[in-house]
Amino acid sequence: MDIKNQMFDLMSELYPICRSITGNGVRKTLDIIKSHIDIQIKEIPSGTQVFDWSIPKEWNINDAYVIDPNGEKIIDFKKSNLHVVSYSIPINKKISFEELKAHLHTNPDQPNVIPYVTSYYKEDWGFCISHNQLNDLKYGEYQVCIDSSLENGYLTYGECFIPGQQSDEVIVSCYICHPSLCNDNLSGVILTTFLAELLAEQKPRYSYRFLFIPETIGAIAWLSINEKNLIKIKHGLVATCLGDSGKFTYKKSRQGNAEIDQIVSHVLKHSESDYDVLDFYPIGSDERQFCSPAFNLPIGSLMRTPYHRFPEYHTSGDNLEFVKKENLDESLNKYRDIIFIIENNKNYVSLNPKCEPELGKRGLYTFSGIKRTEKKQDADLQQESLLWVLNLSDGMNSLLDIANRSNLDFKLIKNAADRLRTCNLIQEK
Amino acid sequence: MDIKNQMFDLMSELYPICRSITGNGVRKTLDIIKSHIDIQIKEIPSGTQVFDWSIPKEWNINDAYVIDPNGEKIIDFKKSNLHVVSYSIPINKKISFEELKAHLHTNPDQPNVIPYVTSYYKEDWGFCISHNQLNDLKYGEYQVCIDSSLENGYLTYGECFIPGQQSDEVIVSCYICHPSLCNDNLSGVILTTFLAELLAEQKPRYSYRFLFIPETIGAIAWLSINEKNLIKIKHGLVATCLGDSGKFTYKKSRQGNAEIDQIVSHVLKHSESDYDVLDFYPIGSDERQFCSPAFNLPIGSLMRTPYHRFPEYHTSGDNLEFVKKENLDESLNKYRDIIFIIENNKNYVSLNPKCEPELGKRGLYTFSGIKRTEKKQDADLQQESLLWVLNLSDGMNSLLDIANRSNLDFKLIKNAADRLRTCNLIQEK
Amino acid sequence: MDIKNQMFDLMSELYPICRSITGNGVRKTLDIIKSHIDIQIKEIPSGTQVFDWSIPKEWNINDAYVIDPNGEKIIDFKKSNLHVVSYSIPINKKISFEELKAHLHTNPDQPNVIPYVTSYYKEDWGFCISHNQLNDLKYGEYQVCIDSSLENGYLTYGECFIPGQQSDEVIVSCYICHPSLCNDNLSGVILTTFLAELLAEQKPRYSYRFLFIPETIGAIAWLSINEKNLIKIKHGLVATCLGDSGKFTYKKSRQGNAEIDQIVSHVLKHSESDYDVLDFYPIGSDERQFCSPAFNLPIGSLMRTPYHRFPEYHTSGDNLEFVKKENLDESLNKYRDIIFIIENNKNYVSLNPKCEPELGKRGLYTFSGIKRTEKKQDADLQQESLLWVLNLSDGMNSLLDIANRSNLDFKLIKNAADRLRTCNLIQEK
Repeated sequence: MDIKNQMFDLMSELYPICRSITGNGVRKTLDIIKSHIDIQIKEIPSGTQVFDWSIPKEWNINDAYVIDPNGEKIIDFKKSNLHVVSYSIPINKKISFEELKAHLHTNPDQPNVIPYVTSYYKEDWGFCISHNQLNDLKYGEYQVCIDSSLENGYLTYGECFIPGQQSDEVIVSCYICHPSLCNDNLSGVILTTFLAELLAEQKPRYSYRFLFIPETIGAIAWLSINEKNLIKIKHGLVATCLGDSGKFTYKKSRQGNAEIDQIVSHVLKHSESDYDVLDFYPIGSDERQFCSPAFNLPIGSLMRTPYHRFPEYHTSGDNLEFVKKENLDESLNKYRDIIFIIENNKNYVSLNPKCEPELGKRGLYTFSGIKRTEKKQDADLQQESLLWVLNLSDGMNSLLDIANRSNLDFKLIKNAADRLRTCNLIQEK
Repeated sequence: MDIKNQMFDLMSELYPICRSITGNGVRKTLDIIKSHIDIQIKEIPSGTQVFDWSIPKEWNINDAYVIDPNGEKIIDFKKSNLHVVSYSIPINKKISFEELKAHLHTNPDQPNVIPYVTSYYKEDWGFCISHNQLNDLKYGEYQVCIDSSLENGYLTYGECFIPGQQSDEVIVSCYICHPSLCNDNLSGVILTTFLAELLAEQKPRYSYRFLFIPETIGAIAWLSINEKNLIKIKHGLVATCLGDSGKFTYKKSRQGNAEIDQIVSHVLKHSESDYDVLDFYPIGSDERQFCSPAFNLPIGSLMRTPYHRFPEYHTSGDNLEFVKKENLDESLNKYRDIIFIIENNKNYVSLNPKCEPELGKRGLYTFSGIKRTEKKQDADLQQESLLWVLNLSDGMNSLLDIANRSNLDFKLIKNAADRLRTCNLIQEK
Repeated sequence: MDIKNQMFDLMSELYPICRSITGNGVRKTLDIIKSHIDIQIKEIPSGTQVFDWSIPKEWNINDAYVIDPNGEKIIDFKKSNLHVVSYSIPINKKISFEELKAHLHTNPDQPNVIPYVTSYYKEDWGFCISHNQLNDLKYGEYQVCIDSSLENGYLTYGECFIPGQQSDEVIVSCYICHPSLCNDNLSGVILTTFLAELLAEQKPRYSYRFLFIPETIGAIAWLSINEKNLIKIKHGLVATCLGDSGKFTYKKSRQGNAEIDQIVSHVLKHSESDYDVLDFYPIGSDERQFCSPAFNLPIGSLMRTPYHRFPEYHTSGDNLEFVKKENLDESLNKYRDIIFIIENNKNYVSLNPKCEPELGKRGLYTFSGIKRTEKKQDADLQQESLLWVLNLSDGMNSLLDIANRSNLDFKLIKNAADRLRTCNLIQEK
């Protein structure tokens, strides 16, 4: 089966699970991922201090429903786990419509969808329904039941480490805390899993670390535990919103001109489609923690349509129909293109820096004397890329710098560098 | 009475006075201003050397007129002090039309207005009339009389100093040397007076110095006398052309990216109306002296339509009808907004720089889970501004830097900083 | 005779000569140039090592032709020296049409023209003809004759040195290796010759060195021989493609913001016509060698339509009709304007940096009090240029910097500096 169908199958398998920032939904999700890649699953006890925060109690849920005055089950957790406010405390009693209504969440702007609501740090309970359903409810006595538990336990996360030739690390991070929501964030989980699987087959230059963590508290916990090793992180990306049909959007790291920022910008510029590059802003996902002022890590986020900008965001509309396997596949390829540059972006010095070397005697000269058409031919582009690498290999320019200055694709420049190295015309700095 | 009417009343009171770079018109003007704010009036004797210049003789005038061959007083200083070339030497004799004509100044491009002409540094006499009037004059003998004096005396200027919490100074400078001209320069005089009055009620962070000086020679004299104290000047503005209906125009300091340049640009960008920001150029008003190469002070000039760019400039058309009290009022508010930023632009450091602090437990978390409309609500903007201040408070970014990077109004960022300081999440650097 | 006719006459005289990278065509060309300017002619023996290259054998040719099966001379070197592939080895035999065809070069995209082909570093022979002629050729036996020699000899080049007041040098380089081709490159040869002639009449500030070298190998040889003196080169231009009717195109030096780059950009910006400025790229002419990484000299190239971008490039269409004397003349004037700035661009310091000096007492104040029309008058521009030079003469700004910041023409700024220097208001830094 090809990779895009495999990705979509995994998403379909993970979709029904009721995840939150802690609990068995996360454990089940990580177990399934473990069948694809070698992840270590780690648990941090409730109450552990992580910087300014404390690991919360563990939340689990078996069932939840509301029965209307006619005895009809009008809200049913088993039909959609979005119906229950995440981290709802247990409840089981009869209440009036007025009292129920104070615990119902809807989105009047999108009256057909169930919104996604959480209450992690304030003990409360609630249900989410479509605004249309709310309008249909009648006065009377309702039976509400949330069969959940909120007790001391653990925060669970997963980590997949692929050692490279050097200890410098690349981080790819996704979050595993949302229930049945596909683009935000299962798309990131799926892409990260398959990217790790592909890299595990190689012995890459950098070491790679793939994080499957609950958003915010998971990133904070991970940073707290790994603070001493952050110095090794040279590049990173937060993977989310990668399955919709929108154009690619890169949100830069806080540094703004880190190598990862240049690399992703290059990949997007040399792709065939429209894209956006946004400056860093401290609203969003775990780049907020990675790029907090004390760490300021070179970590950006490559998405398609960013969270907040697609109407299905945090609603039941962000489902298996909203996400397309072709989009996931294209997103995976973009991440692979980025890693190709991360792996191969090096500085070379010309061993023949005084004038051009004689390319002809080395079989490297292919310019034809006669100019044919306006469109540059492959042979010409290859010849040009050789001259660009020779001219700019003064040790100050990386291959990516050369690609950007020449406006040629990195792969062409990399290929030229390989040929020149073979001829002993350049060497790694 | 509200401030805009007070401003207009003061302008109406000052308008008829015949000012020049020296003399009793300046003294009378400063006396009237002294009834509003506490200014020190200073005098420098004629002949005093100030850098490359020498304080000129003092000029005063009682009356001036021209009587035509029919015995009719056709030019009368008492009707408009623009009729006499400023610094005209005394004269009282009968002359031919040809001789008179050599001393008449008109503007053929605007045949209805009286132009404003000076002859400070070349002893001469002359009258200014409309071009239409010139065309009506007949041959014959004319009686010309200028009852003026040009003798050793003083150059007079005023200075209002408001001590602040620190000795670092902000300069606001205007020029008090033009006769009946409103936009250039009474508007600057009026605005400076009321701005000083407002600041005198506070104990500001910076010390403020308001200068009421004759243009060019006054600025040169002031700089010469105060050369040793210039180091204290941290920001400054030259106030002129602030009563017309044109858009705001900021002329940057010679430094080009001084804090004052950033502040004024921010205020204009976040106002609702169109505006211009111009690079420094060495033609204009006293910024030419403040920004001469040896001083290069961080002083720009916030105007509405700059001198030279409105047709009424230096003509009898620049009168009490050309200037509107609403414009003056809006200009005063812009200056106040600028001073608000000058006073509050500080660098903070986060006391919790490792990841975000937990805002919820401090009552600072207000993001609602459900996204309603595209337009950002106030609560969201406030939440965002907290995150921006936390993320960028690494000691390297001032609040203005944060406002510019987040594209949020300074006041919002300042408010967020106040709330975070109250919670001990940031402290002044 | 005026200079543009002289230039065109010299081009007509040089046009028929069969030049290559070595040989008697180059010698004859340099002898003719020597009748205009004082050039030294130098010879380097075949086999001499120059960096990664070796000076090739010397090539000479007396005649070449092809006789068709009917006994008709269908290709004749005497009619166009483009008919023979440059550096063709001698041949004289009867061959089949198939064998001949493998040695015929045409350009199917431009079926009427003879293309220009070389084979310097691979021993071969060949003829170039129009594609239409190729289509007319019949099967049968052909007599081919190339009466050439390829033997040890010399590479010949010319150098014209004009000593200046200082030993710092300006290089103007052209290449003398193309046969009957006018825009690429005789236009550069002609312009360089007449520019040298004009400069020889002066004692310039800089020393000027004009190079007449075969492209690539000549530049490499010259750099190799003169390596120790390259430090003296402060500015330079490669002169080529200067006779066509296209807009001016400046290709920057590899440094990208060298003084020569700023100077040429200024000249083009203040000319009345459209132009292009291109970043450096390592495909083109001898700037490739001058700007190789070990040298990185401040040498750009001012052309009209660049090589490769006009269809006549390297074809028989690049002839005496394609190039116009008016274009050559305009190009020469641009080079003269550039040299004017090179010669006069200096840094001054104000001797009166505290406030403006009093211009009036030195006869330098000409602003009229009355504003007439919108269009700035010459007197106003001159006054402004004085103030700009005074304000920016802090030793950090060259006259070109001042011209660029004020957006005034360099000549105006230079003139202002001259007047201020005469008045002892500024002095050379």
